[in-house]
Amino acid sequence: METLSVALGDRSYPIFIGVNLLSHSHLYLPHIHGQQVFIVTNETIAPIYLDSLKKNLVDFHVASVVLPDGEAHKNLTTLNEIFTALLTEKHNRTTTLIALGGGVVGDMTGFAAACYQRGVNFIQIPTTLLSMVDSSVGGKTGVNHAIGKNMIGAFYQPQAVVADIALLKTLPPREISAGLAEVIKYGLISDYDFFVWLEQNIELLLHGDEEALAYAVLRSCKNKAEVVAQDEHEGGIRAILNFGHTFGHAIETAQGYGNWLHGEAVAAGMVMAGDLSMRRGDISAQDLNRIITLLNRAKLPTKAPQDMTADQFVELMGVDKKVLDGRLRLVLLASLGKAIITSDIDKALLLQTFAACR
Amino acid sequence: METLSVALGDRSYPIFIGVNLLSHSHLYLPHIHGQQVFIVTNETIAPIYLDSLKKNLVDFHVASVVLPDGEAHKNLTTLNEIFTALLTEKHNRTTTLIALGGGVVGDMTGFAAACYQRGVNFIQIPTTLLSMVDSSVGGKTGVNHAIGKNMIGAFYQPQAVVADIALLKTLPPREISAGLAEVIKYGLISDYDFFVWLEQNIELLLHGDEEALAYAVLRSCKNKAEVVAQDEHEGGIRAILNFGHTFGHAIETAQGYGNWLHGEAVAAGMVMAGDLSMRRGDISAQDLNRIITLLNRAKLPTKAPQDMTADQFVELMGVDKKVLDGRLRLVLLASLGKAIITSDIDKALLLQTFAACR
Repeated sequence: METLSVALGDRSYPIFIGVNLLSHSHLYLPHIHGQQVFIVTNETIAPIYLDSLKKNLVDFHVASVVLPDGEAHKNLTTLNEIFTALLTEKHNRTTTLIALGGGVVGDMTGFAAACYQRGVNFIQIPTTLLSMVDSSVGGKTGVNHAIGKNMIGAFYQPQAVVADIALLKTLPPREISAGLAEVIKYGLISDYDFFVWLEQNIELLLHGDEEALAYAVLRSCKNKAEVVAQDEHEGGIRAILNFGHTFGHAIETAQGYGNWLHGEAVAAGMVMAGDLSMRRGDISAQDLNRIITLLNRAKLPTKAPQDMTADQFVELMGVDKKVLDGRLRLVLLASLGKAIITSDIDKALLLQTFAACR
Repeated sequence: METLSVALGDRSYPIFIGVNLLSHSHLYLPHIHGQQVFIVTNETIAPIYLDSLKKNLVDFHVASVVLPDGEAHKNLTTLNEIFTALLTEKHNRTTTLIALGGGVVGDMTGFAAACYQRGVNFIQIPTTLLSMVDSSVGGKTGVNHAIGKNMIGAFYQPQAVVADIALLKTLPPREISAGLAEVIKYGLISDYDFFVWLEQNIELLLHGDEEALAYAVLRSCKNKAEVVAQDEHEGGIRAILNFGHTFGHAIETAQGYGNWLHGEAVAAGMVMAGDLSMRRGDISAQDLNRIITLLNRAKLPTKAPQDMTADQFVELMGVDKKVLDGRLRLVLLASLGKAIITSDIDKALLLQTFAACR
């Protein structure tokens, strides 16, 4: 087992990464400070892991809510169901919320914790590869609005994260691939050596090798934690974590949340960002090809949907939160392993990218 | 004009208190950092003051939303209307929200600012006496849940507060009285000299004397700011600001939000807290009488609704957030001008208070 500390002053917290950690309750029990525990999970995860978790919490007043599964339910209405359950069970300001699920459960539970009685503690137990390497680090919590993804939320840090690699056994292959999109992202934006390691080990990861997965989760979280520690509230450098996301969000919005998995949209988005980086002369055609090849091997899409027009991208990227005072800012690659943030965008090149990547 | 600084480290902000400040835009323009301004107001205030405010913001991209008036609309549904308007108008992370209204508008705008794109700036222009002396200090923002008042929210500080006493001219007398309940509260919990001043000047305040009102607002905000600076997140001493509120919230919940004004419920709640303090032997019957007399002169209720039973209070106070791990904590008086927080409650005395105060 490895422990990674996310260094955020008095909001610092540990991420425990290893196999079969759910039953190692000595890891997370010290992070529960009151008598009440409230587990938020979903209808897919509950039948598999809810009872195992509850067995480790017999000394607490435990209540839980089981949400419908999927990004389509990540909204204020579902959030309110969490509040209703908390109030019905008379949970007070000393309660600890536990997010048992993927990114949707994690984002909503974290936001519920941020808002319930103006802030209670929470612990994350991510059950997907994507949530282990992405939402478990950095405290971005929130829900979607009908007009825009992740537009409502808070920066709010958990007390601890338990990344139990054994939970990935029950994850469908498509979701392993979606998680690998974010893993590959870290290689691209800040860790060339990791990118090379991924080129050598991608099949091991796809096939669920626990040692390889634990290493990839640890190295991904380390990369993210270093960026977040520099810029918790995304005033600057943290935006590099959005590599591929501005394009990806446009795809998700156009297709309706949940039809493309987030990681799939990010994969296609990273190719688009890479394509634009190549057109700007910052990476070579060979570099771009390495990105596409690795994503293909990870069984991820490397093109936007055929039916999405350039106009749609322009429109949808205009409402994205990366627009700062009317100017589009994008995360691109200066080289493989190094991201840059730029608002110096040539629209003609961007339109070429839209045309080339469908 | 007086400027009071709320001392909260890098979240410190000024409160400007004076007459006709809305037109003194040099006070608040320096606190708007982007090009976009989004005004949140309600259907009562908009026809009177919205245009005057907009006239002072001609250099910005200004949009606004007009909400229905009243506590009944302080919920996630109305909050979502603010988000929808912000997204429709393409406001980004650099926008500044301005709350132009009373406590409901202020609480919702502050919470919307806390959550929109995970946090944007906001400025408060309170239009009621209650919001000038209460919600303009301390950063408590939020909305109600059907099961409990203020159960969903955030601690989030504004960039500045503009308390323009001239705006109180259009405030109905009943709302002036409701605001005076919180003003009197500060005298009771932490400032005996102010309580004596109020005994001498309550009619001036009721009749809208601007000099007296400005003084009462300043002294109230000073009292609150001192408490909040010690305990921003209500881990301890800040709870004294809830004097009268646990009883008052029970009244508001039982009667349905908005039928009793918040200040009216707090007034009756303060008498109940005073009554219990007397039964415990901490204040005299004469002290209690001074409280009741001052509240009566301020045209405030000093009894709970006739039809509220002791059982209702017990039930409703049980779900209140002042319940900590199953124990009821109340703010009572050690003397006139000094509040204490105690969980050492004699239920028999409490039932006597319920019976006596209807």
